Amino acid sequence: MDSATRIERSLNQALRLAEGREGPPILLAALRYAVFPGGARIRPRLCLAVAKACAEDKPALSAMSAAAIELLHCASLVHDDLPCFDDASTRRGRASVHKAFDERIAVLTGDALIVLAFQGLARAGSGAPARLVGLVDIVARAVGAPSGICAGQAWECEPNIELDAYQRAKTGALFAAATAAGACAAGRDPAPWYSLGERIGEAYQIADDIRDVVCSEHDLGKPTGRDEALDRPSAVRRLGIGSAVERLEGLVRDAIGAIPACPGENDLRNHILAEAARLLPRELARPAA
Amino acid sequence: MDSATRIERSLNQALRLAEGREGPPILLAALRYAVFPGGARIRPRLCLAVAKACAEDKPALSAMSAAAIELLHCASLVHDDLPCFDDASTRRGRASVHKAFDERIAVLTGDALIVLAFQGLARAGSGAPARLVGLVDIVARAVGAPSGICAGQAWECEPNIELDAYQRAKTGALFAAATAAGACAAGRDPAPWYSLGERIGEAYQIADDIRDVVCSEHDLGKPTGRDEALDRPSAVRRLGIGSAVERLEGLVRDAIGAIPACPGENDLRNHILAEAARLLPRELARPAA
Repeated sequence: MDSATRIERSLNQALRLAEGREGPPILLAALRYAVFPGGARIRPRLCLAVAKACAEDKPALSAMSAAAIELLHCASLVHDDLPCFDDASTRRGRASVHKAFDERIAVLTGDALIVLAFQGLARAGSGAPARLVGLVDIVARAVGAPSGICAGQAWECEPNIELDAYQRAKTGALFAAATAAGACAAGRDPAPWYSLGERIGEAYQIADDIRDVVCSEHDLGKPTGRDEALDRPSAVRRLGIGSAVERLEGLVRDAIGAIPACPGENDLRNHILAEAARLLPRELARPAA
Repeated sequence: MDSATRIERSLNQALRLAEGREGPPILLAALRYAVFPGGARIRPRLCLAVAKACAEDKPALSAMSAAAIELLHCASLVHDDLPCFDDASTRRGRASVHKAFDERIAVLTGDALIVLAFQGLARAGSGAPARLVGLVDIVARAVGAPSGICAGQAWECEPNIELDAYQRAKTGALFAAATAAGACAAGRDPAPWYSLGERIGEAYQIADDIRDVVCSEHDLGKPTGRDEALDRPSAVRRLGIGSAVERLEGLVRDAIGAIPACPGENDLRNHILAEAARLLPRELARPAA
């Protein structure tokens, strides 16, 4: 089964845990709406690529780890789009959750998706409880405080923003969790795998900053020009487009160099290069080194 | 060490996981503000009473299970108080989190507390990973969809509310998780322990409905008369005060009858009777049967 199918299947398995005739229909509909159809699923595909490179022996656990990472990403998007944050009306080319449903349902959808990520891990990890300990810790650190997504978002509320901490937490942490969780689900020590994910996350953040300036709302399926409008820090605002593209290319090289020794090292390298080639709008892309 | 001290200590241990110099100061302050000083800590004390009655052999794990339950309760209060839900300005006698900080920080505080509950469990459960599987599942089901707190809150957004499902999910689920988690942390099968928590939760919900009508805002530290104002279902609105008090007393008797056989059955019975005596405003209380 290919990775894309495994991810969608595990996301469905997780969502079924949250469904049931006793549940409130609007919330259950909103949970599916927030998760399907997805975006590029870049984080869970990275997680699975690492698990495969580590010769995964518990494929259901690695697939659910990938799904947990994606559920947490979806939760963060739903809460980020809320009126009190970005007040974004569209996401993935259609109404954001608080526009399609309402603000209360959007708050609860984010909450329930966070919970579901951990519940899915517990179910899939029942046959490998020692790995579950590591996975819950990896995922929790990537999402909570002091240096996960919530912390990253909270830096936007500070009078003096710590730029590196902000971007590491808001974007980098979940990519780092994707690589660490892929290794952990496969029974490997996750520690050497963080660095790879951090670099990919940083590259992705820069690519996102570039797209916010270069692409149209129609291309991205969400509002653009938001960094400028919301006065948010951005690599493009700091470095200019040309230097931002160079920085991105350097980070991809660093990421390749940071792959720990593992059975599937070569395939993983190819996965990362192929993903990197899709990060930039076509008119800016150059062949990867 | 007494239960109250164990609970505050475990809550502090959990919060320290979310703290660190790299974190955004306002969010970290809000996390502490949302948890300390606490209310009656009725759910974590129930969890510990069950763990003790089950002859707990992993006291750090049962204390962190109790703390996880309380962190999730605090998270639900922070999100419930948001402008889009109850729009409550006060909680526990002072400004609610979104008033003391801001709305964005309140959303993130709730999110981070949910994450922290699972992270605390993973840390405390590393020496008993098989129990961790059960604990994560118990706690997740009590908070998520289709029948945990998020689902309970989401019933308020439905055109046709399923009253029993609403109250079971919004209040009962976390009490049921408190008793099940106490047993699971002590290495017992949690299944027979749900019923006890469900009955206590239902009694607590009725007591809360009664206090909303009978008490002053000053007594409770939060706005009263909200069920009427927000047209929320309430036992008092349905049954009248007298019958609501009778129903509460019947539930306490049922709860006592639902205690599974365990080494500390007698102490647990006394704990529940003592708690029940505190549920009603003094002018309505009669000696428990």
